[in-house]
Amino acid sequence: MTNFAIGVDLGGTNLRIAAVDDQGTIGERVAISTNVALGRDRVIDDMCGAIERVLAKCGNSDKLYGIGIGVPGIIDSETGLLRESPNLPGWANYPVRAEIERRLKTVVILGNDANVAALGEKWLGAAKDFDDMAMLTLGTGVGGGLIIGGAIWQGMNGMAGEFGHTTVEPDGHPCGCGNHGCVEQYASATAMLRMAKEAIAENPGGALARAAQADPKFSSKTAYDLAMQGDPDARKVFGRVGRALGIVLSGLVNSLNLPIYVIGGGASSAWDAFSPAIFEEMRKRSMVYAATAPPDPNAKKEWASAHVIPAPGKKTIVARAVLGTDAGLIGAARLPMIAESKS
Amino acid sequence: MTNFAIGVDLGGTNLRIAAVDDQGTIGERVAISTNVALGRDRVIDDMCGAIERVLAKCGNSDKLYGIGIGVPGIIDSETGLLRESPNLPGWANYPVRAEIERRLKTVVILGNDANVAALGEKWLGAAKDFDDMAMLTLGTGVGGGLIIGGAIWQGMNGMAGEFGHTTVEPDGHPCGCGNHGCVEQYASATAMLRMAKEAIAENPGGALARAAQADPKFSSKTAYDLAMQGDPDARKVFGRVGRALGIVLSGLVNSLNLPIYVIGGGASSAWDAFSPAIFEEMRKRSMVYAATAPPDPNAKKEWASAHVIPAPGKKTIVARAVLGTDAGLIGAARLPMIAESKS
Repeated sequence: MTNFAIGVDLGGTNLRIAAVDDQGTIGERVAISTNVALGRDRVIDDMCGAIERVLAKCGNSDKLYGIGIGVPGIIDSETGLLRESPNLPGWANYPVRAEIERRLKTVVILGNDANVAALGEKWLGAAKDFDDMAMLTLGTGVGGGLIIGGAIWQGMNGMAGEFGHTTVEPDGHPCGCGNHGCVEQYASATAMLRMAKEAIAENPGGALARAAQADPKFSSKTAYDLAMQGDPDARKVFGRVGRALGIVLSGLVNSLNLPIYVIGGGASSAWDAFSPAIFEEMRKRSMVYAATAPPDPNAKKEWASAHVIPAPGKKTIVARAVLGTDAGLIGAARLPMIAESKS
Repeated sequence: MTNFAIGVDLGGTNLRIAAVDDQGTIGERVAISTNVALGRDRVIDDMCGAIERVLAKCGNSDKLYGIGIGVPGIIDSETGLLRESPNLPGWANYPVRAEIERRLKTVVILGNDANVAALGEKWLGAAKDFDDMAMLTLGTGVGGGLIIGGAIWQGMNGMAGEFGHTTVEPDGHPCGCGNHGCVEQYASATAMLRMAKEAIAENPGGALARAAQADPKFSSKTAYDLAMQGDPDARKVFGRVGRALGIVLSGLVNSLNLPIYVIGGGASSAWDAFSPAIFEEMRKRSMVYAATAPPDPNAKKEWASAHVIPAPGKKTIVARAVLGTDAGLIGAARLPMIAESKS
C-alpha cells in the first residue's frame, strides 16, 4: 500500500475505521462502539485513538491523503459543521472537522453517511462503471446520495440527496421531518416492522400474526420469510415497500434520466420481496423508464436481484447494492482522494 | 450584431423564429402558423423559408453560430431524431436535424421545448445569476428543464427534466402517459380548466358555476379572477394547483438542493392564485426547503411574485419566469452558442 486514506463510518451505534488504498483495497480496520451516551468529546477521543492505531499499522513511507468521515446527519460542507444529527445528540453545530484536523494534523473531510455510501457503490460497487448514479439506503430511516460526474452532488449547501423525504403518499403516515407520507415511512426497516404490525392488527388470525405470537423477537425478517413463502399479509407489506420505492424512483428517472439507481442499506436484504413491486410501479409511473427499461427486469437476475455488477448501456438499471456495510467506509475514504485530485 | 444564432420555437400551433446575438439581444423575428395538418414536409418547408428570410436580413459579415430548435417532444440528443411528439403527429423518428442541416448548410441543434425554455430563463431570465436551476413550464401539459453547470442536463439519452410526470397523487387522475396522478393532471392549463369544471359540478349554485353559465368562453382565467376575489370554489382549484406543484418542488429541493426553481409557461399567469399553496406545501414537505427558505416567501414580492430577478444567496428561491414566450426562442438560440464554446 502506498497511497491511502482513512475511512470512518461514524454510526449512532458502531464506529468503524479502515485504511483504504487508492485501488480500493481495505487494509487495517477497527470497529468499536459509539459511546453516544458518554458524550461527544468521549466519542471524538475514541475515534481519534482508533484512527491513530490504524495509522500506526500503516507503513511510514505510505502517503496519506487524509481522513474521510461519513456522519449520519446534515453537514455544512463549507464549514465542516454538523448541522443536525438525530443519532448524535449534542453534536449540532459542533465543528467536527476542525477539531479532528487539530488533533490528527491531516486533511479531514466530512460527508453525509448515505452520500458516502453512494460514493462507495459508485467507486467499487454496483455502479462502478457509471459516472452518474443515485442510491437509496434503507436503514432505520431512508437515506440517499446522488453522484454526478463521479463526485457527490452536494447541492447549494450540502443538503442534496435527501430522497428519503420525498412525498409518496400526500396524506400518508406522519414523518419525523414534519411531512406526511415520506418514502421513509414505507421503505425503512422501521416502516417495514410498523407495516407488519399493522397487517397483524388487520388480520389477527393470519400466519403473520401467528408467527409474531410465537416469536418474541419478531422482526421484519420473519415477515420477509413469510412473504417469500407466499403469505398474502406479508406480501402486502413488501408490496407497499416496493410501491413507495417505485414512486420515488420513477420521479428520479423522469427528472434525471440516470443510467443506474442502487438500493442498499440493511433493509435492502428484503430485496426479493419488494423489488417486483418497484418494477411494476416504475413501468406505470415513468415513461422514461418504460422507454429505457431492460426487457424484463425481474427475469434479468444479473441486475435486478443478484449481487452482480451491471454493465453500462442505454438502459435504466435499478440494482441492489453490492458492498454491504463497507460502502460507507470505502466511500468515506474516497473523499480525501477526490479532494486531492481536484486541488 | 456580430455573433448570432437563430432560435426556433416549433410549437404545435405557432412557429416563431428569431436572430439572437451573443449578448441576448433579439434582432429580426418572424412568427408563422405551424401547418401541422398539411404534414411534416410542409412545416419543414415553411420553417426553412422563414429562417432564410431572417438570415437574409442579418448582416453578411455577421457570424452565425447555427440554428437551435425547441421541439415539443422527446429528442434523441445524439442522433437528432424526434422520438415522440404528441403535438407533431407523423414526426416520430424523423431525422429533423439532418434534414434541416442538409437544406440550410449550417449547424442545427434540437432541444426539448421545456428544456430550452429553462436554458433561456437561465441565460437571461429569472435564473440568470445562477449556474444550476430547474424550471417547470405550465402549458397544455407540464414540461420541465434542468440546468446543471449552465447547460441542459440531458441525462443518459436526452430524456431528463420530465418533472411534469412526477406522481403527486398515487391514485389520482389518469394521465396520458399511462400513470395516475402526475403533476400535469393538476398544474397544466388543461388541468386547471378540468378542476374548475369539477368544482362547478360539485357546487352548481356557486359563483364559479354562475360565471361559467354566463360566459360561453369560460376559461381558467375566469376562475383565476374569481379566486383573486376570494371565491372559495375557485380558490380550492388553485389550491390544488399549488399543492401539486409544492409536492413536486419539495421532492426536487430535497433531492437536488438547487438555488432556484422557476415556474413559467402560459398558465403561470395564475401565479398569484396558486403560489401561496406552493410555499405552504414546501415548508411542510421539504426539510431542506424549511432550512433554506427566505423568511417569508409570500411577503418577499421580489422573488415570490413580481417579475423581478432574484439575487443569489444560500436561500432556496421559487420564482416566476420573466421572459414569457421568448424563453424558448432565446434558449433555442443559445444551444449552438454553447455547442461552439464546448467544441
